[in-house]
Amino acid sequence: MANRTSILSDIVERLQATRLFAGLELSILEEFAEQAILRNYPKYTLLCEPTQKAKHFFLVKSGWVKLYRDSLDGQEAVLDVLNSQQFFGETAHFSNNSYSWYAESIEELELIQFPSTLLQKHIKQTPQLAINMIAAMSRHRAQQDGEIERFMLQNAPQRLGCFLLRLLPPEAADKGAPCPPIQLPYNKSLLATRLGMTPETFSRALKTLQKNTDIKASGLTIMIGNFENLRNYTCRSCSNTFPCDDLT
Amino acid sequence: MANRTSILSDIVERLQATRLFAGLELSILEEFAEQAILRNYPKYTLLCEPTQKAKHFFLVKSGWVKLYRDSLDGQEAVLDVLNSQQFFGETAHFSNNSYSWYAESIEELELIQFPSTLLQKHIKQTPQLAINMIAAMSRHRAQQDGEIERFMLQNAPQRLGCFLLRLLPPEAADKGAPCPPIQLPYNKSLLATRLGMTPETFSRALKTLQKNTDIKASGLTIMIGNFENLRNYTCRSCSNTFPCDDLT
Repeated sequence: MANRTSILSDIVERLQATRLFAGLELSILEEFAEQAILRNYPKYTLLCEPTQKAKHFFLVKSGWVKLYRDSLDGQEAVLDVLNSQQFFGETAHFSNNSYSWYAESIEELELIQFPSTLLQKHIKQTPQLAINMIAAMSRHRAQQDGEIERFMLQNAPQRLGCFLLRLLPPEAADKGAPCPPIQLPYNKSLLATRLGMTPETFSRALKTLQKNTDIKASGLTIMIGNFENLRNYTCRSCSNTFPCDDLT
Repeated sequence: MANRTSILSDIVERLQATRLFAGLELSILEEFAEQAILRNYPKYTLLCEPTQKAKHFFLVKSGWVKLYRDSLDGQEAVLDVLNSQQFFGETAHFSNNSYSWYAESIEELELIQFPSTLLQKHIKQTPQLAINMIAAMSRHRAQQDGEIERFMLQNAPQRLGCFLLRLLPPEAADKGAPCPPIQLPYNKSLLATRLGMTPETFSRALKTLQKNTDIKASGLTIMIGNFENLRNYTCRSCSNTFPCDDLT
């Protein structure tokens, strides 16, 4: 029983640390924890399908999840790549009640699964949860606006530069601060797809970016020679400049 | 006074016809109507700015509004073009409390302006309004997912084809049904920007689409020679096929 208790309090703590559940009464978090199911999946497991009823939503405990769609002619559109402390599927229940994408583990994955009906019930009962949910969705909307803007205005090297910048801490923008090296969070093939590029376009974009901004790529590590060069090159074709509004 | 009464009941009726306010008690709709302000603007009036506090949200009564951002190097990203019965600014209050885009009338415009605090108050008090808001945002999220997917997978002529298809009624997909001509809702220059294309790319895309799909463009009218040709050409590089999930 001690084990069960510590599992529940771990889930409560994880929920408290999310924007969605921040500031809610403990009894509500405990109810979610009691109805939660821990799930472990090996690499490359299909977790959800587009036509599947959105009976559950998920919090990533560890590992990475890819949300994607497949076109009729066999191309893949990677809509998001999520890791620890990120939710997925939490909004699907409220519109057409299906997920509208595939979810797949891209490495060993631990998920915490919750029933969608519990979220719906508490949104109706708990104004703070409704406001939190709307705030989280409003924030996500601003991020999607940003992604659409970048597809409209930035070329491929700039989109890659933007992805790199967004991996940096906001302090990297402080004048004279040393810029830490960037570790790519997943492999270049997935990164290319996430940025809507073919592998060839991605390779060319990385070369162009290295030539124009004093960055050096070595495997999954990117050394930033001159932060201002990277920012000026990337952010000039965007309405925002690093550190971006939607990161804070 | 009769005039004031008929204005209020017109606003109530318009609210009732939106997804956001559908199914709510009349007393709530009347409170929104009482606090509403009717606004009339000439063409090309700037209505909101990105740094402005989101004190109000708006329902379009008649005319068109463009939501856009400007990049540092002077390019424009048109995030949305809205008309009658569409809201804008209703979610801004809930995240960073500023609009994050410019809004501009692109022809003579009638707006109904509401205070954001009234929406926040009623979302806290009225579970159905909270659920409606989340459902509307979830639906919008799916539409943005679709837009991002199309930027990733479709070429310029396909993106234009998709825009045209989405102007057709769902019945156009019925086998053997005659396909009505399409009226472009605004001029080609704005349409090009909305699709993230330069005017030159747009012209080439329209030519390519005409060559490949038996459509004929004459001014703002597009004749569809063969609906199946247009659908096959456009939808093959998408996970959806017309009539799309996010339209219904």
